[in-house]
This record gives sequence, C-alpha cells and structure tokens, in this order.
Amino acid sequence: MVQVNENYLKLKSGYLFPEIAKRVKTYSQSNVNAEIIKLGIGDVTEPLPKACIDAMNQALKEMGTNEGFKGYGPEQGYFWLREKISENEFVSRGCEITPDEIFVSDGSKCDSSNILDILGNDNLIAVTDPVYPVYVDSNVMTGRTGESLQNGTYGGLTYLPINEKNNFLPEIPENKVDILYLCFPNNPTGATISKKELRKWVEYANKNNSLILFDAAYEAFIQDNDIPHSIYEIEDAKNCSIEFRSFSKNAGFTGVRCAYTVIPRNLSGLNSKSEKVNLWALWNRRQSTKFNGVNYIVQRGAEAVYSSEGKKEVKGLIDFYMENAKIMKNKLQTAGLKVYGGDNAPYIWIKVPDQMTSWDFFDYLLEKAKVVGTPGSGFGLAGEGYFRLSAFNTRSKVIEAMERITNI
Amino acid sequence: MVQVNENYLKLKSGYLFPEIAKRVKTYSQSNVNAEIIKLGIGDVTEPLPKACIDAMNQALKEMGTNEGFKGYGPEQGYFWLREKISENEFVSRGCEITPDEIFVSDGSKCDSSNILDILGNDNLIAVTDPVYPVYVDSNVMTGRTGESLQNGTYGGLTYLPINEKNNFLPEIPENKVDILYLCFPNNPTGATISKKELRKWVEYANKNNSLILFDAAYEAFIQDNDIPHSIYEIEDAKNCSIEFRSFSKNAGFTGVRCAYTVIPRNLSGLNSKSEKVNLWALWNRRQSTKFNGVNYIVQRGAEAVYSSEGKKEVKGLIDFYMENAKIMKNKLQTAGLKVYGGDNAPYIWIKVPDQMTSWDFFDYLLEKAKVVGTPGSGFGLAGEGYFRLSAFNTRSKVIEAMERITNI
Repeated sequence: MVQVNENYLKLKSGYLFPEIAKRVKTYSQSNVNAEIIKLGIGDVTEPLPKACIDAMNQALKEMGTNEGFKGYGPEQGYFWLREKISENEFVSRGCEITPDEIFVSDGSKCDSSNILDILGNDNLIAVTDPVYPVYVDSNVMTGRTGESLQNGTYGGLTYLPINEKNNFLPEIPENKVDILYLCFPNNPTGATISKKELRKWVEYANKNNSLILFDAAYEAFIQDNDIPHSIYEIEDAKNCSIEFRSFSKNAGFTGVRCAYTVIPRNLSGLNSKSEKVNLWALWNRRQSTKFNGVNYIVQRGAEAVYSSEGKKEVKGLIDFYMENAKIMKNKLQTAGLKVYGGDNAPYIWIKVPDQMTSWDFFDYLLEKAKVVGTPGSGFGLAGEGYFRLSAFNTRSKVIEAMERITNI
Repeated sequence: MVQVNENYLKLKSGYLFPEIAKRVKTYSQSNVNAEIIKLGIGDVTEPLPKACIDAMNQALKEMGTNEGFKGYGPEQGYFWLREKISENEFVSRGCEITPDEIFVSDGSKCDSSNILDILGNDNLIAVTDPVYPVYVDSNVMTGRTGESLQNGTYGGLTYLPINEKNNFLPEIPENKVDILYLCFPNNPTGATISKKELRKWVEYANKNNSLILFDAAYEAFIQDNDIPHSIYEIEDAKNCSIEFRSFSKNAGFTGVRCAYTVIPRNLSGLNSKSEKVNLWALWNRRQSTKFNGVNYIVQRGAEAVYSSEGKKEVKGLIDFYMENAKIMKNKLQTAGLKVYGGDNAPYIWIKVPDQMTSWDFFDYLLEKAKVVGTPGSGFGLAGEGYFRLSAFNTRSKVIEAMERITNI
C-alpha cells in the first residue's frame, strides 16, 4: 500500500503567494472594474534586455538547422556560460571561483530547496525570521522539522529574529547550528550586511563546521561600494558556504528561468564517522542524476548578460527599479509610514501602522488603494506587523500606487 | 557540524552516461582522427520542427516588449498548454485527463526522480531489470534502498527481470510492492506492452493499493494501433497511476527542456493511519514550493507541437527515426546478430554475441567500428549480455555505422 510523505501534512495551508493570489482573485471578482496594482510578488515587469533577445534569437535559429541543433547539454551548464559567470561575478571581485564550481540551473527556488538532497536529515537548521518561505517549507517537506506550532513556527528549527532592534541583522545563535540560511540583500526586509558582519558568520561557520547557504539573488541591486555581493568576498568563506545566484532579478529572467549555484570544489560535510565527504561531488552527482541541464537558448541569453551591451542594459534595468524604490520610500515616508530597505534592494519593508496585523494591512491596502503587497507575517512570526512592497513595476504604476496610498 | 546525506555514498561510481563519455573521450584522445558515430545516449539529432521555432520566435519577440513580457508563469504550466495536451494526448484517445491533472515541467528525468518527494520512505519499490538508471539511483539517493550488493543490485529493491524468456515483459511479483516503475515503449529494450498485459498491472495495483509510475516518454514512436500510448487507456488506471511524458523525443526538445507529469485529481496514497491522502495536492504543493515553472517561450514551442503544421512535422521526425531503426534492425540481423525492439521504439536491443560482456562489446564496437552504443549491464544486472543502440542520428551516419558493424 503506497504511503505518502507525511511531512507534507505538517505544512501550514497555502504557500504565501498562492494565498495572496486567491485573495486578489476574490476581490477582483466582486470589484470587476478595480484597477489593481501589484507590488506583491517579487516579479519583474520590464522586457528582457535586447542583448539577451538577440542572443536567444540567434540560438533559436541554430536549433532549427542541422548544423546548429543542440540536444542534451551538460547537466552542469555549458562551459562558456560558467566561464563568463566565473570571470564577471567572482574573479572580477577578487573571489577565486572557477567555472567548474558553478552549476547552472533553472532557478534559485529549485536550487535552494534541492540542496537539502545532499545533506543529512539530522542537521540543526537555522533561518532568519522573517525569511523567504521556501527555505522553511523545503525543510518541513523533507522531515527536518517537527510539527507546526500554534504560533506558526515549526518545532526543531532555530529562528533568528531580524527586526528594527537588531537593524535586521541576525545575531549569532548561542547553540551550534549545522546549516544556516542567509539572504543578503535580504528578502523580505531589503536589509544588507556589511563585510564585517558577514565575516562574523563565516568565522562562526568555520569554527563550528557549519554550512552557510547564502542566497545572493538580489546582489545586483547593491548601490553602496562596501557591501559584499558574494559571500566569497569574505576570507575562508569557500570552506563553509554555498551561494545561490539568479538571472531572474538582474536581467529579468523570471519567465525565462536561469540561475546558478556555487559549490566550492573542496567544500565538505561529514559522514556519521565524522569523516569528510566532498559536497561538490555529491551535488554534481545529484544534478547529473536528477536534472537535465538548462535550455541551450536560455544559456545563450544568460551569456549575453555579460556582453558590453548586456551589462549596460542590465544596469539600466537595475537603475530603473532602484529609482522606483527611491520614489516609493520617499512617498511612504512622507505619508508618515516607517519604512526600511529599498536602498540596496528592490524591497521596501513597511512597519504596519495602528497596530494592524500584516494581513489586516494587506486587506486594507487592497480595499482602500487597490494595491497588492505581501504581509510580513507570511515570511514568519517576527514578520508580523510588517509589510513588503516590491519596486518591480512600471514607473507610472509605482507613482499611481504611491498616490493612492498617500491619499487613503 | 554539517552532515551529508550518506545514502549518496551507496551509489555505484559513475552514472552510466558520464562513464560512456569518459571512455569515448579516452579513445578519441589516442585516436585523434577516428570519426566516431554515437548511437549511445538517447539524444535526438534532427533540428526542431519549424512550427515550434516559429512559435518560440514569436514568444521571444513578446518578451522584448512591454506589452508582451511575461514574468513568473504558473508553476503548473500555462493553462493553454495543459489544455492542448489534455485534448490531443488524452481526450482524443478516450482518456479523461483534464488540464489541471497535467503538470508541465522541465524534464521527465526531473519529474520521475522528484516524484519520490511526495511518497513515504518505507514503500517497497519494484523496478524492471534492465531499467532506466534514474529510477534506481533516485531511490538510492533518498534512502529507499539498502547497500549496493556485489552483483551490482541494491538491497531492498524488488527487481523484475525482463529478458528473451518473458518477451521483455515483467512478471507480476509474488510479494506486494507499493510502488512500481513501468516504462513502455521500453527504455532500454525497445519492447512494448499490450493493453491486455498492462491491464494485469493496473488490476494488481488497484487490488494492492500500489502506485504505478508509468513512463511513456517514447509513446510517439508506437506504430502498431493496438499498443496503448497512455496507461489511462486502461480502465481504472486513474486510481493507481502517475504518467510521465516528454517533448524531448517526439519534437526533439532534449536541449529545450519540456515535459509533463499526469497526476489524476483523485489519486491517493495512505498516511500512517491508513487514511487516504490526495497525491495531486501533495504534488501541487511540491511544485509550487520547489519549482518555478517552465520558460514561457518553451511552452509556446510545446503548444505548437499540437498545431496542424506541428503535428505533421513531428510525424515526419518520428518516421525519420523509425526508418533509421528499420535500417539498423535489418542490417544487424543480416550481420547475424539477434536483435529486439526497434519496431515501436527508437531503441534496438542487441544480444551480445560470443559470450562477451556488455562492456566488452562496447569497447569492441568502439575499437573496431568506431560506433558508440550503451552496454546493457549499465541498465541493470539482467541487462548483462545485451547492448542498446539508439536510432537517433542522421541517415548517413546510421548507414555508415551499420556498414562498419557488418564489415567487422
């Protein structure tokens, strides 16, 4: 008799974004003419860079010819793309990350949850609170947590609160954790981490043989020169960290699907006899067995991000969204709201006023301003009382949304 | 201290195809001028259908405009694609599979291994022997087997031999298995299953509350009218089966990446209290949390497979490869070899002559004919003594390869 994975039954109902979609749908159905502006999900809105379109166009043409056709590519990604990534994202910043340490994939959501495949079930896991829900849910699904508790957290996980008091920087846990998720620039709070602060975590991880899963999906939005784009800018991070990167937010690939994960060649974990086991080799095996590589056309598009034209266009996109963020932050502050983030990240983290809950504020904004954001409580217990707005939208809609909010 | 998933350490070294690639590379390096013909890996060689190229071209254009740009799509795939699949692949054959029962993904390799995510760890698993290695390896990786045994099998798995004696059809196991992998048309043997034979399995599964994981990646190659293309052509299969399908082999999408998995809405497994738990909902949750949908452009390309032009072109591709298979089968038989498959599948399954092992025959063919195939033993213990050739290559290379083999 076929048994299901009962860990799934511990999951709280509805992943955050489907729940938002449901509420918006319900609202729209009874307010047919309402022009809703969506600043909820972190999805880009501007078209793909022309450099990427051109490269993909060329690749698509090849796929229609006998000479140019490409079947299965390497599961790890084409070497020419991994080389470009290595050069432009890492070596240029003084990080010695080689092409073979880069695994190209179809998304960071996949990678950051699939990574658990190669790690033991009994590791102690720490996440920040609030946090990107995928980190938590993928741990629940694989039986790495206890039951869901009444307050919305899960037993067995270590939660590191990030809030106004600690400047949205988690404090080093008192207990030893084995695996630690860090995301900077942070989703959802928009906070960043300095090299000095990040160094503390690398030291902690190296001292305790812990593994840092560093999500740098939003690094392209960093404006200040002294904020690290990669954890490998910190000395000895290669001994304790895996990094997730994506083309979704810099080049607008959310509907195209391309990302990559960095696993240093000598990174290791332990087996039950406390002998070292190479993690790069395990991930390589995982990807070879359970994944079949990324679309050739897409990889050519990603490669074009590193052409001089591509770089210019990506900078244009980032500048555009960051100008949105600036407009939003100013307007929201003018409206008397307390806001965080938005300086080096496309997210504005609003302190919900008048002691409303996050979902109250969600319904309130939807009702009064027809603006959709994301309730902070959807990102964790300590997200309650906060609200996320994303800077991903057209200029006119951003301005219109801010007008509506300030006019409530 | 971070612990690794020790189940990975049970895996036998080298997934089959990387091992082949290594041997070919070694041979090429010491035989620089050898023109090797590859009939090993099941990778298509003909260009994409023009209908697909045109549709993808159009979609790519949209992605470069403000109006047409698409960000994140539904994790389950766009409804218009799922509708076309439902209509053309299932309803047209009398199978009541609705669009919401179809989950679009980036590959069957991913789906057929990811499916284990939603299933319990203590299920008894059966695979045929020989078998597509991914089924076995994904079970090893997730701790559903014992150690690797000296003969190359894994403890804890039930192996159902398929060979000349049983006409390459597995026999119903005497013990009750919970999960059963079936692949027809079969990779690697090229065998097919009749409705009558398949019905036995559906009855077994329904009687024992077992789950059939039915891999129909090669259904497009079926030439005989009475062979089922889908397990849902069998009555009551919706109560016990998940089906994997792919655009890789029909429309040549191996480098494009698009596939789909069918999970009937009411399909269920059991929790530890023997209560029913809906599997569709678990998979939907898995995909929403750990996957971010397939590239919009690719989905438009897949949709075009169902246009009248697309259907014609796909038929042309299938006819082309099946003509290859026919040529190969005839030539190999003329050369005195005993061959199976190749009539309703793109694979020829050769009985290795002169009591050579499969790997001996691999090295022999590589050395003497510069032809690469796949050793049967790479697909399992009972594959020893067999050898797979695939019909995926250009006509001239197929003819040349057959000339070389017959001239040894």
